Amino acid sequence: MLAILALTTSFVFFAPAPQSDGDSGALDAAIGRIVERGLASDHAFTWLTELCDDIGPRLSGSAQAEQAVEWGRARLEEAGADRVVLHPVNVARWVRGEVERARILEPADHRLAVLALGGSIATPPGGITAPVIVVKTFEELRSRASEARGKIVLFNRAMGETADDGSRKLGYGDAVQQRTNGAIEAAKVGAVASVIRSVGTKGAEYRLPHTGMMRYEDGVKRIPHAALAAEDADLIARLVARHPRVMLNLELDCRDEGTVQSHNVIADLRGRERPDEVVLICGHLDSWDVGHGAHDDGVGVVASMEVIRLLKSLDLRPRRTIRCVLFMNEENGLAGGLGYAKDYARELAGHVAAIEMDGGAFGFSGFGVSAGEGGVAMVDDVARRIRSVPGYESLRVRPGGGGADIGPLSRAGNVPMLSIDSDSETYFRYHHTHADTLDKVDPRELARHAAAYAALVYALAEMERPLPRLAAR
Amino acid sequence: MLAILALTTSFVFFAPAPQSDGDSGALDAAIGRIVERGLASDHAFTWLTELCDDIGPRLSGSAQAEQAVEWGRARLEEAGADRVVLHPVNVARWVRGEVERARILEPADHRLAVLALGGSIATPPGGITAPVIVVKTFEELRSRASEARGKIVLFNRAMGETADDGSRKLGYGDAVQQRTNGAIEAAKVGAVASVIRSVGTKGAEYRLPHTGMMRYEDGVKRIPHAALAAEDADLIARLVARHPRVMLNLELDCRDEGTVQSHNVIADLRGRERPDEVVLICGHLDSWDVGHGAHDDGVGVVASMEVIRLLKSLDLRPRRTIRCVLFMNEENGLAGGLGYAKDYARELAGHVAAIEMDGGAFGFSGFGVSAGEGGVAMVDDVARRIRSVPGYESLRVRPGGGGADIGPLSRAGNVPMLSIDSDSETYFRYHHTHADTLDKVDPRELARHAAAYAALVYALAEMERPLPRLAAR
Repeated sequence: MLAILALTTSFVFFAPAPQSDGDSGALDAAIGRIVERGLASDHAFTWLTELCDDIGPRLSGSAQAEQAVEWGRARLEEAGADRVVLHPVNVARWVRGEVERARILEPADHRLAVLALGGSIATPPGGITAPVIVVKTFEELRSRASEARGKIVLFNRAMGETADDGSRKLGYGDAVQQRTNGAIEAAKVGAVASVIRSVGTKGAEYRLPHTGMMRYEDGVKRIPHAALAAEDADLIARLVARHPRVMLNLELDCRDEGTVQSHNVIADLRGRERPDEVVLICGHLDSWDVGHGAHDDGVGVVASMEVIRLLKSLDLRPRRTIRCVLFMNEENGLAGGLGYAKDYARELAGHVAAIEMDGGAFGFSGFGVSAGEGGVAMVDDVARRIRSVPGYESLRVRPGGGGADIGPLSRAGNVPMLSIDSDSETYFRYHHTHADTLDKVDPRELARHAAAYAALVYALAEMERPLPRLAAR
Repeated sequence: MLAILALTTSFVFFAPAPQSDGDSGALDAAIGRIVERGLASDHAFTWLTELCDDIGPRLSGSAQAEQAVEWGRARLEEAGADRVVLHPVNVARWVRGEVERARILEPADHRLAVLALGGSIATPPGGITAPVIVVKTFEELRSRASEARGKIVLFNRAMGETADDGSRKLGYGDAVQQRTNGAIEAAKVGAVASVIRSVGTKGAEYRLPHTGMMRYEDGVKRIPHAALAAEDADLIARLVARHPRVMLNLELDCRDEGTVQSHNVIADLRGRERPDEVVLICGHLDSWDVGHGAHDDGVGVVASMEVIRLLKSLDLRPRRTIRCVLFMNEENGLAGGLGYAKDYARELAGHVAAIEMDGGAFGFSGFGVSAGEGGVAMVDDVARRIRSVPGYESLRVRPGGGGADIGPLSRAGNVPMLSIDSDSETYFRYHHTHADTLDKVDPRELARHAAAYAALVYALAEMERPLPRLAAR
């Protein structure tokens, strides 16, 4: 309580930065009020508790995902949105099933920590048993194609490893290739199944597999594809180095149950002057079916909802409309993002920005911006105002923001994209695992994300001149 | 290699500490050679790789446990022991089975991370479904006995919590009570099953349950007893605080398959002057059936074996016999330790010390000593010599060493007990979990433990006057 009083005092004497724009002082004051109120709020965490504990994991097409849709609609109405609609989208219903086992049979009996990857087909009952071949890259696999025939391929490239050319550490985008395309590449060389080293950062070596989306390709045989804990990938690699044959049994009964209807939840806070100009803000409501989807992306959902609630509670109605979208199916199909871009195509010319928060809430670091010339500097001018608030001094604006859900609408309408940035090193320890649970979220850190997020959104919806649009692609 | 040369140099000019004992200089020189050779050795880790990777988990009564016995015998013979015998002991064969599920059914559907506790009975097929009651202590449970009837009890006391009287942080010995005796206490108040918050330290919040031994009591109904990940205990506690009823389903098909014969492996390096006086050194060969039993207690096994190998390879044969025992069944019955005390009762008067290494190898910290008056100071005089070696400066000797396997022989023969101490905070993150795997062991840190261990053992076997025996209890 003392801390809040101290902050209040600092806002009372908040000195507007020198600025040619006549509204600058008003914007400073509004940002000060938003951040102050946001930091003192526990609404986002209360909502997150409902989403994680009372609903739980919410894979697209599941009963819990539908519960989450209804919950999102109800809470956004309570938060004071002017209009909440459910936007229908068709999503794949993939089900993990009850059997999920990986076991080394030779040279020793080891049960492994495994998760089927989203979209994988099942194995036959009893599983697939074959020798393992371990590779680091698709190139290595192709060069050893004759060896791989009839085997189970282990793709054992770790996120954070140094790239072959020594130029950089491999990021998520690099490491995730073995997850997304591994089954295709393995099938092309005649492998009977494939497994990957889980895609995650160091620090979570507690036998924790990471699931995620994988793909098949028309014309290429579909083979089962699963993720092993880092330790189990290491174990197999050690055994293969020391023994002539390492036999693996993989048994999965996951399955595709066709397409079902689900929804994006869309809530508008109508603009006072230019209601047809829209700042879209979002997180995704679906999660993987393991863990609680707390950081991925419960925090993005509740922080986006908190933006609406905060502005409404402060009676701050900016020039433009703020549209909060809780997207469905970000994890395994992107039906929500694709459907929005298609069904709202006629409105996209009026979308002045789209902001996604989908990187967890481990440590707020700033904003990412993909906009036309000068856009980063405009966002930095907003950021400068937030940096005046104690605790936000190191807020960083970087070029290159975006998000999976807003990619399609941005491409379709050249809409500037922004992201709410957080500590990604910690995020990827928990990403897509059983351990992405509510207890990992610090309520104060979540409020710190939401408060800055709300200030940014208000500024983008209020400032006279919108961000420069992206060039047509 | 440079580091090793540097160490060698420091030993060449090793200055004997001022000392009345005429053999002091010789002891200093021997300790210097042992530590030097030990630090440069990778034997212990090579053996650990065989034990963890090529054999794997080795719960008493399993085929892998028998493999480990044969492996231990063969390796100790290769290491140069004068005589290796298998000492028969009868162990319980408890089997985890294939079904092990805990699931919250109301107010939401949550699958939990669970491990049956060793010795637990199964549930009926389909499991036991009942509301949960959450308690912190046995006292709280008894005071709420009427509430607990027909329910599943969650014992939710965390290791590291502050004791009720504020006097201290709860250690393993405190927290483990809910694991050992929880099913008895829960059954006494009419509960239908019990679960515990896993016994482990902070830092492993990756949805990781810890198994371990539990007990039943004659005359008290036997109910299933299992451990949940810390996150799942937290989840249940949060739900119980916010909802009128939280329903849990627990399904286990673990079972007791009676008693089978197994063995302690006993290897002697015979003493040159007093072969009937014995310094017993040990670790335990069995492990839990999850993880590789790398730190618990693979490292204790291979470090004890390395003591024999090091002394033999240096042609150092001390006055007394050094007996390396790889005990069976430390984890769930202590048949090895009890059997040794019984079957070797006539030799115990000649046992001058018993040393157990069963605390992992995360960070060597020193020696624990339980001996008669003056014993700690005598060990500290040995420790002083090891502290002269770079890297061992902070080696600490504390009163109170011991080990589960050597407890019975010490009680029976008043034999001084010592332990090889390591970082226990880190150890208890991995203890009894799927994550106790080879990759968690640093080969150099393991060698650092083994080298100091060997120096201590040599000194105790060589020095003229043995440690003062414990008082009769």
